[in-house]
Amino acid sequence: MPSVIVYGGRGALGHAIVLHFKAKGYKVISIDVHANDDSDVSILVDVNAAWTEQEKNILEGVVSNGVEEVEGIFCVAGGWSGGNASSSDMISNADLMWKQSVFSSTIAAKIAVKHLKKGGILTLTGAEAARNGTAGMIGYGMAKAAVHQLTKSLAEKDSGLPEGVTVVAILPVTLDTPMNRKWMPDADHSSWTPLSFIADKFHSWTEIFNSRPPNGTLLSIKTAGGVTTEEKH
Amino acid sequence: MPSVIVYGGRGALGHAIVLHFKAKGYKVISIDVHANDDSDVSILVDVNAAWTEQEKNILEGVVSNGVEEVEGIFCVAGGWSGGNASSSDMISNADLMWKQSVFSSTIAAKIAVKHLKKGGILTLTGAEAARNGTAGMIGYGMAKAAVHQLTKSLAEKDSGLPEGVTVVAILPVTLDTPMNRKWMPDADHSSWTPLSFIADKFHSWTEIFNSRPPNGTLLSIKTAGGVTTEEKH
Repeated sequence: MPSVIVYGGRGALGHAIVLHFKAKGYKVISIDVHANDDSDVSILVDVNAAWTEQEKNILEGVVSNGVEEVEGIFCVAGGWSGGNASSSDMISNADLMWKQSVFSSTIAAKIAVKHLKKGGILTLTGAEAARNGTAGMIGYGMAKAAVHQLTKSLAEKDSGLPEGVTVVAILPVTLDTPMNRKWMPDADHSSWTPLSFIADKFHSWTEIFNSRPPNGTLLSIKTAGGVTTEEKH
Repeated sequence: MPSVIVYGGRGALGHAIVLHFKAKGYKVISIDVHANDDSDVSILVDVNAAWTEQEKNILEGVVSNGVEEVEGIFCVAGGWSGGNASSSDMISNADLMWKQSVFSSTIAAKIAVKHLKKGGILTLTGAEAARNGTAGMIGYGMAKAAVHQLTKSLAEKDSGLPEGVTVVAILPVTLDTPMNRKWMPDADHSSWTPLSFIADKFHSWTEIFNSRPPNGTLLSIKTAGGVTTEEKH
């Protein structure tokens, strides 16, 4: 049975991806702070552990759960927090954003080095906003900009990833999640990207090489009037 | 007496900036892991402290040393380390790079919020290489890409910085430092940027508003055949 890993598999997007791949007949490994009972394997992340400790624990968890080679690794872990330079919590929020987006993305890359099959797919999660300045959410912007640059690094020839792997960062604007609906009930939901759009993309990219964007693409994903479009950077 | 703060004031570039501003009649505050006896004030950084602890200690240090308003803040703290995704120390190096470049840059921004005068100058230190992928130095590239994006954020209207402040990131290629000469004795030194070039720029930018690049500029600084040129991004 083909396998995939969903890093952040218990988040709204991660869960949608887990269910999508399960429905398509995959064995799905979820890596998250919380177990995902819909996945075949749950590897737990200790958010209080240092970066290198998380790396060690998760890599060991992958091996001890018998995972050998996977078709795809989808890192959709992350979060959001605001704050400009004068906010008292700007730095504590920047710390949190770094941990949520960059710890996860780099550890996903380490897993890819050891367990992604040749020609497999690795996706990371950036943010459309971080292609420019983000004065009101400084930590978020820095972390996502780092993920964008990491994507470019990993796509280079000597990145250390297995041969023929494609690395893509998705750059959503706002995802249509229950949490976003809760906090922004009056927003224009027809401008939010459905989770199924992304789950479906990931599935195509896993199975159909020619459906993938070029290696190293930052893929802006925008939705307007219920229609979702992509733009490659 | 006008004052400036040099964050990383004991590094090769920082020391050159300290000496340059001292010679021009400034009171100079150095923030660094080690004291700089050529500065008027040395505020020490505890590299083992957490990000928010460093923020607290350094902001308190600025106040307890009687620093009120400064003309410029120059963050030249940073370091270099390599490693692609398959390197066993990629993540520990990424952690170090983040601490050296991003802790320092964000804390410099916090100091600017409280102590930089209106219309003052804040400089950060990026890297030309991090404008693209950096497969062989993944952690370095991510940290510098975050500094680039931070520069764009801080230059925005609602960043929280005092009115009229200019934020510029310098993006050097290789600086002509004793350490680089030691480790790369056979390199073409005429392609390395002299420290005096940067110290002199910072001094001009402090005193002559019109000499500054536009707010939010990433300023590539390249040297070839002993001639240094700039390019704005």
